[in-house]
Amino acid sequence: MSDLGWNPLHGVPSYPAERYAALADRIGGLLRSRGDILLVQAEAAVALEAAAVSLARPGLAALNIVTSLYGGWFGQWLRRGGATVADIVAEPGLPIEIDAVAKALDAGSRIDVLALVHAESASGILNPLPEILALARDHGIVTVVDAVASVGGHEFDVDDLGIDIAVIGPQKALGGPAGVSALSVSRRAWDFILRDGAPRDSILSLADMKSWVDSGRFGLPGTPAPLEFFALETSLDRIEAEGLENVVARHALAASATRAGLAALGTPVWVPAAKASNLVTAVPVPEALAPAVLITAAGRLGVELTEGVGTAPARLVRLNHTGPRATFQTVLSNVVAYGAALRQAGHLADISAASEAISSAYSR
Amino acid sequence: MSDLGWNPLHGVPSYPAERYAALADRIGGLLRSRGDILLVQAEAAVALEAAAVSLARPGLAALNIVTSLYGGWFGQWLRRGGATVADIVAEPGLPIEIDAVAKALDAGSRIDVLALVHAESASGILNPLPEILALARDHGIVTVVDAVASVGGHEFDVDDLGIDIAVIGPQKALGGPAGVSALSVSRRAWDFILRDGAPRDSILSLADMKSWVDSGRFGLPGTPAPLEFFALETSLDRIEAEGLENVVARHALAASATRAGLAALGTPVWVPAAKASNLVTAVPVPEALAPAVLITAAGRLGVELTEGVGTAPARLVRLNHTGPRATFQTVLSNVVAYGAALRQAGHLADISAASEAISSAYSR
Amino acid sequence: MSDLGWNPLHGVPSYPAERYAALADRIGGLLRSRGDILLVQAEAAVALEAAAVSLARPGLAALNIVTSLYGGWFGQWLRRGGATVADIVAEPGLPIEIDAVAKALDAGSRIDVLALVHAESASGILNPLPEILALARDHGIVTVVDAVASVGGHEFDVDDLGIDIAVIGPQKALGGPAGVSALSVSRRAWDFILRDGAPRDSILSLADMKSWVDSGRFGLPGTPAPLEFFALETSLDRIEAEGLENVVARHALAASATRAGLAALGTPVWVPAAKASNLVTAVPVPEALAPAVLITAAGRLGVELTEGVGTAPARLVRLNHTGPRATFQTVLSNVVAYGAALRQAGHLADISAASEAISSAYSR
Amino acid sequence: MSDLGWNPLHGVPSYPAERYAALADRIGGLLRSRGDILLVQAEAAVALEAAAVSLARPGLAALNIVTSLYGGWFGQWLRRGGATVADIVAEPGLPIEIDAVAKALDAGSRIDVLALVHAESASGILNPLPEILALARDHGIVTVVDAVASVGGHEFDVDDLGIDIAVIGPQKALGGPAGVSALSVSRRAWDFILRDGAPRDSILSLADMKSWVDSGRFGLPGTPAPLEFFALETSLDRIEAEGLENVVARHALAASATRAGLAALGTPVWVPAAKASNLVTAVPVPEALAPAVLITAAGRLGVELTEGVGTAPARLVRLNHTGPRATFQTVLSNVVAYGAALRQAGHLADISAASEAISSAYSR
Repeated sequence: MSDLGWNPLHGVPSYPAERYAALADRIGGLLRSRGDILLVQAEAAVALEAAAVSLARPGLAALNIVTSLYGGWFGQWLRRGGATVADIVAEPGLPIEIDAVAKALDAGSRIDVLALVHAESASGILNPLPEILALARDHGIVTVVDAVASVGGHEFDVDDLGIDIAVIGPQKALGGPAGVSALSVSRRAWDFILRDGAPRDSILSLADMKSWVDSGRFGLPGTPAPLEFFALETSLDRIEAEGLENVVARHALAASATRAGLAALGTPVWVPAAKASNLVTAVPVPEALAPAVLITAAGRLGVELTEGVGTAPARLVRLNHTGPRATFQTVLSNVVAYGAALRQAGHLADISAASEAISSAYSR
Repeated sequence: MSDLGWNPLHGVPSYPAERYAALADRIGGLLRSRGDILLVQAEAAVALEAAAVSLARPGLAALNIVTSLYGGWFGQWLRRGGATVADIVAEPGLPIEIDAVAKALDAGSRIDVLALVHAESASGILNPLPEILALARDHGIVTVVDAVASVGGHEFDVDDLGIDIAVIGPQKALGGPAGVSALSVSRRAWDFILRDGAPRDSILSLADMKSWVDSGRFGLPGTPAPLEFFALETSLDRIEAEGLENVVARHALAASATRAGLAALGTPVWVPAAKASNLVTAVPVPEALAPAVLITAAGRLGVELTEGVGTAPARLVRLNHTGPRATFQTVLSNVVAYGAALRQAGHLADISAASEAISSAYSR
Repeated sequence: MSDLGWNPLHGVPSYPAERYAALADRIGGLLRSRGDILLVQAEAAVALEAAAVSLARPGLAALNIVTSLYGGWFGQWLRRGGATVADIVAEPGLPIEIDAVAKALDAGSRIDVLALVHAESASGILNPLPEILALARDHGIVTVVDAVASVGGHEFDVDDLGIDIAVIGPQKALGGPAGVSALSVSRRAWDFILRDGAPRDSILSLADMKSWVDSGRFGLPGTPAPLEFFALETSLDRIEAEGLENVVARHALAASATRAGLAALGTPVWVPAAKASNLVTAVPVPEALAPAVLITAAGRLGVELTEGVGTAPARLVRLNHTGPRATFQTVLSNVVAYGAALRQAGHLADISAASEAISSAYSR
Repeated sequence: MSDLGWNPLHGVPSYPAERYAALADRIGGLLRSRGDILLVQAEAAVALEAAAVSLARPGLAALNIVTSLYGGWFGQWLRRGGATVADIVAEPGLPIEIDAVAKALDAGSRIDVLALVHAESASGILNPLPEILALARDHGIVTVVDAVASVGGHEFDVDDLGIDIAVIGPQKALGGPAGVSALSVSRRAWDFILRDGAPRDSILSLADMKSWVDSGRFGLPGTPAPLEFFALETSLDRIEAEGLENVVARHALAASATRAGLAALGTPVWVPAAKASNLVTAVPVPEALAPAVLITAAGRLGVELTEGVGTAPARLVRLNHTGPRATFQTVLSNVVAYGAALRQAGHLADISAASEAISSAYSR
């Protein structure tokens, strides 16, 4: 006798509605936010587009910091909705300079909203978030921060920093699923979003999502995607067990050990430590060498390196030390594999010194 | 010694890019479509909005059949993009009459696009799809069909029926995940979508998704949501093992047995069989009785009934026999629980006859 | 960039040693036992054989109650180890009579150990456990109880009842995995087991397992089977969330509703309620009818009935309402399907009355 | 409406009986065996004990090669069953010498069965299996080989080598679950096992398992442990996709790279390459240093090293490159972490040279 009521037709279990609000609260705790937490049943790019679309309308004036394609898109989404947008574009592949932001804010015209990406996976850079937010606070501006590639890898306290709209995804430093994302929205941000003309009846409408909050957070907004929510719970379990501070410290160590290893290898890095992401480290490949050649060589060792994308003038290779990859094993094999790839291409690379440096960094 | 390289930090595995195109082909096979299959990494409502947004622009003339809120939204999305939309609205909670469609098409003004929902979960109705599509074909009109609540439960052969854009989701009759959906797009539909002014750089842009097709379907568009894709594969495995025809037949039997049971119970059904969905059956509750009372009573037996939503003038309770619920066990317990609930509310219900009728329906 | 450290070679994660002792404690709580809890990394039949093998040796006198093949095997295992075993065999397919046990105990010869099965899946019977244990207590006898087919479906408080060795498996009423089982062992039982000549260095040696307890319950005994332990945790989570009392009550209701339904159907049951298991209900099939005919007919409805096994003189069909099957849906469809099968074979069966009866039983 | 028939009580699905025989065939293919494949629903130690118990009886003469605790146990199990067993014990922690086996076989007394372990995890050694089996073939002796720690990591063709009973587990080089194991049994071995007095009615009885084969391999023997079987299928999928030859080659490379790295580090290894396992590499720790000190130091880097167990005179630390760990990443970080640990303990270790050596080994 088969002892279980198994039915070959049983599919994916549904997500219990009563856990949905609790999940939002856990995200709120992680972000140290007392704002409303909205869960978006799609990748974080959708949450970002929704933030832009929901804010944008004729009359809105935005300052948009562009350090990657994402920043560019954010500006376009705002403009598409009728907003007036001034872009401040960083040097290609580099963080924005705080002076440029200060100058733009002091230029005189009214600015309602300031948007930026915290860290960029494409080039491995980190924007000076606290400094920019301090300026925005002085000017009373609503702030939108894309923290998809920083949350879990860098300090990110929404209320302390004074962020009005934060967008996160669990699939990077948090080691979670990619098909769900979340926003934190402050009261001040809602004031802008809920003005006349708020887009409605769309996956991109934050005003629609607000009804879930306003109705007491019962039930599930939309058709639930249970696998994503169960996986998000599991990744939060893991993060909470490790401790968010420890998760951030683990990424910081992976980043500094990677940089130490690359320095010992004799390889320049794309940006100095103070301007660098803790999740990925980008290195410019030597002149006359294609990134793909190095990536293929590392791949033969079973090590996955990737090409930098976007606007950086240099051709970049990225070493990934994100989430489950923020470990000694991955850092060491990334750097040594990159060194071995350089050598195979006829360049010098001091694998020995790199291994020593990484080993020291982790032994401290 | 622990024999496996387990790392407590390992997260969700990524979806192998090389399986992505194969997955699209399997969906194409299921739909009997030679059009392009686009996978959308979000629930089917997003695929629907994307279809509307991608078609809509000033100058486009659409005939929009409205048999539920979804139809209403589809019209709004088209209008929002500048299209001229004529809605033909069915009697509340009922399918559209073919004559109304014929009349609208013959009214003289140019129509580029005709949109409708195949089956409605909200009221359990089925629109006369083949007849409507035949009319559209005669008029050379591009057709958009929301088949989320019919695929797997009713015949749905995209090319045979002549559907230009079909939208499906795996979470109903296919028993799959809710966080992924798909579109089939014909060459003729692309001609409309790719005209000047195609929306771009948005989750809602089919033109963006087309680049994946045009680039030879390598790689993964956007950030992959691996859990959804693995689960979609598993549900397709199951559907292919059972055989799509058998899946449809199983739903047809569940629907006819439910109707037979309800007739024997002495309960009217909302629409006649020819106009009814194979996935859910809606019954109008007796005068002066709230659906919630019956739903609560059935819930005490562990049977989940739900309230009809939307515009139907009657207050409806729905019996769900979708996907893993299209079985004798669920059909029988749904009807008997509904009967027991009626009785508890002081109404007559012939549970005996209902059980006999369902048992007979399944024994044939 | 793939954002997760996925390696296609990653296998099954290992079970964290620190959770092993906690798991044992949860089993102890479920059984209300202060004895030592031993986890066995194999199906419960192995735990049973281990109990017998570990107790057995020349000079040990055992009284073995036989109500199924399992009881027979237990006696053989004891004898194989040199013990002197007196079997008291119940009427085929029936529970033991308490008088027979009393008589055997009072017969005068020394008895060290008394062994029995609490409930039998093969015939759906329940032995009078509390009464038998009371007699054993009066005689100062070590007791061994196979509770695989009762734990979770019947009250089973190890210390209150005075059980020295209890053997359980999670795959029946607890709805858990089949590849792990557990024993509770009292100090008094250890005294017998650890005497000179205790079998050692075998999967069947409880004395070996004792070393894990004695060493402070650190680490994992043997090679861990992590999937089983993770699944056991999950099933305990579920049981604890529902509450063990509610789980038992759910089984009791499923059993009484099944019996009410069968009575209304006009079908005799194999044993009266007081002697019946809450997990399965056995019915003798009509003369000149093969169980397989009825089972096949029910199978066509998608309902899985099974044949009784073992020694009962009647040919039995079993209705399973165990674990995830202890629900209204399963009980109703089991009984109605059995009725439909009887009719197809030319017998009378009042499906109507049965449905009414089950519905009433659950509506109370 | 929740669209799936989810029931919070649903437990573990059962394993479809029709896939059980197919699974056995896949194991047979992996082992290149035309013998009967028996699946054992417990860890491999149980399969080993079953082999010994099933062969053993008075009158059986066995030659038992002892290179670890497992070999010792095998002899005890045979003796417990009444067999006459001559042990040939290797130097502690070393493989057996082929001359010792030849001498024992030529000593004149009849030998029915020869038993040995192919590779030992405890010390990282490999016995000269083909040579030993050639001798056994010349003497017409039934052979029993424990290949748990070699299958997938070394060539192991049961029929070519002439093995009568092979015991495997999927949890090491195959990267599979630990709660299931398998035996291959030749016709010649069955002749011994099925003689008068075959143990029966026990988890340890191969004769019992034979009934499943004899009955046409329908159904499932015993209570199925579905999680283990599903996981075994998945690991076989993976092995078949990679190709068994490639899996073995990956382990051989991991072993040779580990040895090259250790040599460059300046660390002796326990046994020369020809006598070493491809799954783990054992190194004797420097005088006056406790293995635990080094293991703890490596653990701080997140690298798990383990202590050698058993009889070796040296205190060993083991570097594990088994299954999912047979990769560049693990080999490199194992060796570098061991070097870092040595240094921290005040010893010299040339991490630089080791990294170079491993990188070279993998770059070839």
